[in-house]
Amino acid sequence: MDHERIVVLAHEKFPDSAKTALGVMRYGDQAVRAVLDRDRAGERAADHVPDVADAPIIGSFAAALDATDGDVDALYIGIAPIGGGFDESWRDDVRDAITAGCDVVSGLHYFLNDDEEFARLADEHGVELYDVRQPPDDLGVATGSAADVDADVVLTVGTDCSVGKMTASQEIVATARDRGIDAAFVPTGQTGIMIEGWGNPIDRVVADFTAGAVEEMILDRGDDHELLVVEGQGSVVHPAYSAVTCGILHGSMADGFILCHAAGRKVVHGYESFTLPSIPAYVDLYEDLAAPVHEASVVAGAVNTMDVADDAAAEDAVAAFADAAGVPAADPVRHGADRIVDAIVDGILEAGLAE
Amino acid sequence: MDHERIVVLAHEKFPDSAKTALGVMRYGDQAVRAVLDRDRAGERAADHVPDVADAPIIGSFAAALDATDGDVDALYIGIAPIGGGFDESWRDDVRDAITAGCDVVSGLHYFLNDDEEFARLADEHGVELYDVRQPPDDLGVATGSAADVDADVVLTVGTDCSVGKMTASQEIVATARDRGIDAAFVPTGQTGIMIEGWGNPIDRVVADFTAGAVEEMILDRGDDHELLVVEGQGSVVHPAYSAVTCGILHGSMADGFILCHAAGRKVVHGYESFTLPSIPAYVDLYEDLAAPVHEASVVAGAVNTMDVADDAAAEDAVAAFADAAGVPAADPVRHGADRIVDAIVDGILEAGLAE
Repeated sequence: MDHERIVVLAHEKFPDSAKTALGVMRYGDQAVRAVLDRDRAGERAADHVPDVADAPIIGSFAAALDATDGDVDALYIGIAPIGGGFDESWRDDVRDAITAGCDVVSGLHYFLNDDEEFARLADEHGVELYDVRQPPDDLGVATGSAADVDADVVLTVGTDCSVGKMTASQEIVATARDRGIDAAFVPTGQTGIMIEGWGNPIDRVVADFTAGAVEEMILDRGDDHELLVVEGQGSVVHPAYSAVTCGILHGSMADGFILCHAAGRKVVHGYESFTLPSIPAYVDLYEDLAAPVHEASVVAGAVNTMDVADDAAAEDAVAAFADAAGVPAADPVRHGADRIVDAIVDGILEAGLAE
Repeated sequence: MDHERIVVLAHEKFPDSAKTALGVMRYGDQAVRAVLDRDRAGERAADHVPDVADAPIIGSFAAALDATDGDVDALYIGIAPIGGGFDESWRDDVRDAITAGCDVVSGLHYFLNDDEEFARLADEHGVELYDVRQPPDDLGVATGSAADVDADVVLTVGTDCSVGKMTASQEIVATARDRGIDAAFVPTGQTGIMIEGWGNPIDRVVADFTAGAVEEMILDRGDDHELLVVEGQGSVVHPAYSAVTCGILHGSMADGFILCHAAGRKVVHGYESFTLPSIPAYVDLYEDLAAPVHEASVVAGAVNTMDVADDAAAEDAVAAFADAAGVPAADPVRHGADRIVDAIVDGILEAGLAE
């Protein structure tokens, strides 16, 4: 999956409810030629989001194709309704993309390849439909060998879902690369896969293969890089998703963890009757659970302060977290990831060399 | 799935490598009319296994049908080759069962329903093919509500795979019922599902639905019984299968755990480079991991002493385990499950009433 010039669909959701669209715009190498949002047609992405490359917001794929003189090679579905279904109001856009010779990339639970019309059109026009939430069918159980690769492996773990693990992982990779470290991102969810163009959607694999699907990626890439940053999912004490987290934890055999937290979060997102444990309890939980398979420590914290009023309050939140976790911390978006990468270098990369 | 008179296929594997066959023979309500093992045709099950109802061992389904005057309603596949494939040398037996009007029940990864010949024959003869390792397609994410049911919930957790969690769970249910406690077994794996005739094969569900698939069973049965005993899987520090274990742990929201261990086991079965943590470390790991979702304690231990030489050594192994875990323990097969059920009554059922 390797596209250079893309259109991102985000109808009625841009920017606040278009997490995948924003992820691709912020971190993908693809040039975003247009965003589709019929509610904001005529506006520009930069009117709403300051830190992504600007693009026009257009009402339909057909209009975007006109506006870009047809210079587009793929349509990315950048939003997901609750339940992950396909919204029929997008059918014209997808149909127009396929007939214009563009691939379509989707992270929906509804697979485009299972849609009779789209499959037929794609075949006729020689384009690919990428359902990134469809795991490959050759996955298997883990063998316990992820630690054998040359790279050091860092995993972002969280106090909850939706705390910024994907973002923290991307910022860490970018900052490490700026310093000349050969770092790579290991994608485990649909947004990460769309950004990177490869990866296994761990939440959709067979439960027995959870660790194996992570291990397979690490074995595949681990001898080509100095540092792998594995995108974590969920939380190991999430009432619904802990299995995914635990499988990634043991399958990755990470050498160190970045504990990610959303400042101010007290209860599980969407499961508000469940209270989050204390930060030190999370540190112990992740380290104790990892140790029998592969020893690893929390080396830094990534605190998402998006909902914190101002810089001073954000700095306070980060300092409080660092104090509680006993490791350096930063908001990788607000402050940059330097403090976190410093901790990775000191605690993992150089510690590894010293062994 | 409700069969009264069955034939169990165990070619070339009975009894030592026929775990599923033995489980069904030992704990199922079905009357086993014959065991198929072409290597032992003419012998009897009781020649090899003292504690199951006796049955003749016969070389083929056709011969078994003759020997029982056709009084059979299903063929159960009681063995699984490595990889879970279908052994073509069984095809005649399955074909003969279907054409004789018998259902076929299989826990293989290879689904009988996907086999063109079997599917066609089953359709022609009006029989069902039960692939118990095929999860239902209406599963979803957990809602965090398993603790709301009337029943108290006990989960068997383990220090490793293949330590006897299914067996311990069955023995606990049987002993509890002997005392007048309305107990039910909640099946999470193929043998348990074959014995009970219902259940979700948790290792085969989509990772995101691991906890949800357990919760669904507890919500379905939890108001009809006093005690649910959930069959655990794997271990929470298993290099490959911990995701399954963790999902069952949080999805069940158990009120207490029975920690299951194979006496003498020092390393992970099949992953011998991984050393098992200490028994107290397991107690802490399971309790600490459970607490943020639902508080629970290890209330007893089930020690599998199958490989221990004699009764005295077995009693020593159980005593050492009880001492390390700080709870009563027994080998539920060698000693019966009374000590374990005592601990469940004291620590969970009566503690619940006292609240």
